Amino acid sequence: MIPTISDVRAARERLAGGPHRTPLLRSRLLGEHAGGAAFLKPENLQRAGAFKFRGALHAIRTLADDERRRGVVTYSSGNHGQALALAAREEGVRAVVFMPEDAPAAKVAAARSYGADVRFAGTTSPERKAAAEALVDREGVVVVPPFDDPRIVAGQGTVGLELVEDLPDVDVVLVPVGGGGLAAGVTLALKASRPDVEIVAVEPTTADGLGRALAAGAPVEIPAPTTIADGLKPLQVGEIPFAILSEHRARAVTVTDEEILDAMRFLALRARLVVEPSGAAGVAALRAGKVPLEGRTAAVVLSGGNVDPALLARALGSEGFDG
Amino acid sequence: MIPTISDVRAARERLAGGPHRTPLLRSRLLGEHAGGAAFLKPENLQRAGAFKFRGALHAIRTLADDERRRGVVTYSSGNHGQALALAAREEGVRAVVFMPEDAPAAKVAAARSYGADVRFAGTTSPERKAAAEALVDREGVVVVPPFDDPRIVAGQGTVGLELVEDLPDVDVVLVPVGGGGLAAGVTLALKASRPDVEIVAVEPTTADGLGRALAAGAPVEIPAPTTIADGLKPLQVGEIPFAILSEHRARAVTVTDEEILDAMRFLALRARLVVEPSGAAGVAALRAGKVPLEGRTAAVVLSGGNVDPALLARALGSEGFDG
Repeated sequence: MIPTISDVRAARERLAGGPHRTPLLRSRLLGEHAGGAAFLKPENLQRAGAFKFRGALHAIRTLADDERRRGVVTYSSGNHGQALALAAREEGVRAVVFMPEDAPAAKVAAARSYGADVRFAGTTSPERKAAAEALVDREGVVVVPPFDDPRIVAGQGTVGLELVEDLPDVDVVLVPVGGGGLAAGVTLALKASRPDVEIVAVEPTTADGLGRALAAGAPVEIPAPTTIADGLKPLQVGEIPFAILSEHRARAVTVTDEEILDAMRFLALRARLVVEPSGAAGVAALRAGKVPLEGRTAAVVLSGGNVDPALLARALGSEGFDG
Repeated sequence: MIPTISDVRAARERLAGGPHRTPLLRSRLLGEHAGGAAFLKPENLQRAGAFKFRGALHAIRTLADDERRRGVVTYSSGNHGQALALAAREEGVRAVVFMPEDAPAAKVAAARSYGADVRFAGTTSPERKAAAEALVDREGVVVVPPFDDPRIVAGQGTVGLELVEDLPDVDVVLVPVGGGGLAAGVTLALKASRPDVEIVAVEPTTADGLGRALAAGAPVEIPAPTTIADGLKPLQVGEIPFAILSEHRARAVTVTDEEILDAMRFLALRARLVVEPSGAAGVAALRAGKVPLEGRTAAVVLSGGNVDPALLARALGSEGFDG
C-alpha cells in the first residue's frame, strides 16, 4: 500500500505527545551563499537525535493489542534501531534489535540505553534479517523495517507537515535520501499544499541509489558504497518511497564526503548545530552550488545528529572552510 | 534607572521582527541526571550566535532620530560587539567597535563581517573605554554598554518572557552571569508571573563577581580571572543587574572549567547543540550536582554558541565523560 497525504495527517494525530515539534531556523548566511532564502528543519534536535523516532513511534502506535503484547523487532544498528528501542520503551512494548557481531560498542550501548534487547547475528544485513524473521516465526513479534513501510513513511512525513506550516511559501525542499522514507514522507506532505514545490533528494556520489532508480524507472541495487554518511548507505531505495518520489518528480543530486564535511563544519560554527554526515547532505548541496536558488526560498531537512565525536572533531578541523 | 517588567514587555514589542524567537527544548537525560525535569533555552541559535542581539537591537531601536544619525559605539570585542554591529547594520545605523590591538583575528573578522567599523585602542579595557568616550565627545555617537544599562537589561529580559510562555510551570531557572544583564532581565521576566521561581546565577569559580557582591551587599571588583568562559569575565557585576538580582534573591553558584568542558561535550553529543563555554555554565551546574532538582522543573539558558573550533574539538575529546 502506498501511503497518501491522509495517512500522513493521521500519523500526526497518532503521534500527539510523542516526538518534539522541531523548530524552523533561518540561516541568512546559507541563503546568501545560495542566492535565495534558506531555512533549516533541525531533526537532529528530535528525540533520539533523528527523524527516525517519528516513524518508529508511529509504527508502534498502529499495532493491534495482541501485536503490542508480542513486541517488535528490527535489524538496523543505526538511528532506526535506537529510535525503535526508545519508542517501544515509552509505549511499554518489548523491542529486539539485531546487530552485527562487529557492531561498534557505542552503537550497542546506545540501543541498550534506550531499552533495546540487543542480539547479535552474523556480520551482514541478510544474516540479521534472517535472524529477525526466525524470531517472528518463533514468537510472533512484529518486524518494523527502517523505510520501506507505509507506517514509517507516513510517520516521517510529519516533518513535512510542520515544515510547510512554518514556511508556507517554500519553493524548494532539500532532503537527504538513503532508503527514502523521509524524502517520500516529506514529499507527500509538501505536495499536498504546495504542488509546485521542488523536491531535491540529496545522496552521496558513491550511494546514488535514487538517481539510478529514477533513470532506470525502478529501484536498482548499487555496489556497497564507501561514504561517511552511514545513514545513506542502503543498497536500494525502498519500493514505496520510490513510487512516491518518482510520481512527484523528485530530483536527485549528489554530494561528496568533502562537501559533507564542509557542511558539518558550517552547521557547527555558523548554525551552532551538531549534525551527522547524512544529516548535512542538503546543506552540502546548497553550499557546493548544486542547487542555485535564484531568489527562491529553500528548506533543508537536517535529518539527524548522532555523530562520532572524533568525526565531528575532524569536520571542525577540515581545511578550505571559508565560513 | 532600574528597569521593571513593563520595560521588558515594551522591549518585546520594540523588538518585533528582529531577534529569532528561540525554541524551548526538553532534555530528558539532563533532567533524569539532576533528579527532575530539564529544558534548554538555546540562545546559541539566536542571530549572531548569542542573546546579546536582543539587547543590542533594543538599544538601537530606542535611539532618537538625531542619535541614530550619529551612530553607536562600544568597546566589547566579544558577542556584544558583534551583536551591536549586526543590529546597527540592519537598522541603517553606523557602529564603531573598539578592540584591543592584540584582538584575535577571528574576532576582528567576525565584527567586520557584521558591518562594524573596527578600531583599535591599546590592550586594556580602560584604554578602549577612553577611546570610545573620546569619540563620543568628538562626534556625538552614543555608547551602548554591554550590560549595565536599562535598555540592555530590558532587551535581554525578552529571553525570560519567551521561556515562561513556553514553560509556565518552571520552578528553577539557571542562567550564566558575567556582567549580569541576561540574568537580571530574565529575573524580571520570570518573577512577574512566577514569584516563587528560584533564580540560580552560574559563574566560573575564578570569576565569582556576583557571589562576592551578594555577600558584600554591593558590586565588588574581583581579580582578573582565568577561565575558558570568556563571556563571564567582567571584573564587576553591573550596578543595575546587581540591584535586580539582589532584590529578587538570586542565588550564585560556581562551576569549574572542567565542569564547563563536560557540559559542552554533553550538549554537543546529547543535545546536538554547539554551545560556547559561557553558555554551558548552567548545564555544568546541573550535571555537577550543584543544583539538585528534587522533582522540580528547571530551565537552563544557553547564552551563546560562538566558540573557537579548536576549543570545541578539545571539549569533544574531554575525558571522564559518561554520557
